[in-house]
Amino acid sequence: MSAAASTPAYRRLSVEERRAQLLDAALSLFAHRAPEEVSLDDVAEAAGVSRPLVYRYFPGGKQQLYEAALRSAAEELRHCFDEPHVGPLLPRLARAVDRYLAFVDEHDAGFSALLQGGSVVETSRTTAIVDGVRRAAAEHILSHLGVKDPGPRLRMTVRVWITAVEAASLIWLDEDKQPPVAELRDWLVEQFMAVMAVTAVRDPQTAALVERVLSAQDG
Amino acid sequence: MSAAASTPAYRRLSVEERRAQLLDAALSLFAHRAPEEVSLDDVAEAAGVSRPLVYRYFPGGKQQLYEAALRSAAEELRHCFDEPHVGPLLPRLARAVDRYLAFVDEHDAGFSALLQGGSVVETSRTTAIVDGVRRAAAEHILSHLGVKDPGPRLRMTVRVWITAVEAASLIWLDEDKQPPVAELRDWLVEQFMAVMAVTAVRDPQTAALVERVLSAQDG
Repeated sequence: MSAAASTPAYRRLSVEERRAQLLDAALSLFAHRAPEEVSLDDVAEAAGVSRPLVYRYFPGGKQQLYEAALRSAAEELRHCFDEPHVGPLLPRLARAVDRYLAFVDEHDAGFSALLQGGSVVETSRTTAIVDGVRRAAAEHILSHLGVKDPGPRLRMTVRVWITAVEAASLIWLDEDKQPPVAELRDWLVEQFMAVMAVTAVRDPQTAALVERVLSAQDG
Repeated sequence: MSAAASTPAYRRLSVEERRAQLLDAALSLFAHRAPEEVSLDDVAEAAGVSRPLVYRYFPGGKQQLYEAALRSAAEELRHCFDEPHVGPLLPRLARAVDRYLAFVDEHDAGFSALLQGGSVVETSRTTAIVDGVRRAAAEHILSHLGVKDPGPRLRMTVRVWITAVEAASLIWLDEDKQPPVAELRDWLVEQFMAVMAVTAVRDPQTAALVERVLSAQDG
């Protein structure tokens, strides 16, 4: 038996690859179970490695692994908002919401656990990671709207709509993913325009944006 | 010196009165500071009693006191929804939102800490208390709408709007209570009609409700 053959395949991964592999394994476990129901043994088993190896990469144990997995999920969520600044605005928003809902669909229970808090491993650090994604989403929307200096009414409208998207996603998971995802997406995009229109009544900045979006739609 | 004079006034309170007094003191502390920044000493001092007395009433210590204060706040929040089933619907909703925002205004940082989680004393039990208030709010709205058997689209619309109200309240506190509370209330009520109207496009049950609310407005 040669030395190479006796070496398990996983030895050949680089540190970065190994780390990514462990995070993937953890993410897919967190995706289907609440963090408190996932043990390091489960992660080791899912990745096909030993428990000590998981500890070598994440000496802080489960809390550290959970936070790293959360950061990696947050990174993935941020990519949902990577939408080129071309074409009419509402279809851009629809595509971003589509990618977001695909993430929700894929990560399922892990997404709920992540957003609903109440998890035993929830800390102000993990809350900050989730808040960072919300802030990034708001900034993306404002940049697509072409707004440099959003007033408080416009900011509140965008932030409240982002919360509505989160809440709708959680309820959608709760309701066995009904209505169909395409309907949910259209409903959310239409809601965005509806709440913007409500704000427009009192806020000239928002009124100008609504006008612009609607005229681009017609064009 | 008579025996009566040497007995501190607080000895004369009944068990229930004492408990209520301690909860009041705790609530007003939690209202201005995050739960983790409030100690039992602070509560004893605010209520003008000794620390052992606080422990006698809440032997579970701060966690028990926090949960009891949370339940008491939840009870108070539920009263915001006590609106007679008379008159046009939107003014009823406006009055309920008014009371809710008055609660938010009064409890301030305690309200944020309560809803935002991330507190060190947050547990699945405290999350359940907050969720109970959300459910009660949704049931109140559906009963005012006169709906016995709400479909999934209507339920989602009402629940998402309730989350939007919470999010807007938190942002409003963050933004030094701007815009003025009356504007925030009108904006939230108008948002309710706007998101109901969006749902009405696809949901006959919601469409019938919107029709009825609008015709009552005209009448």
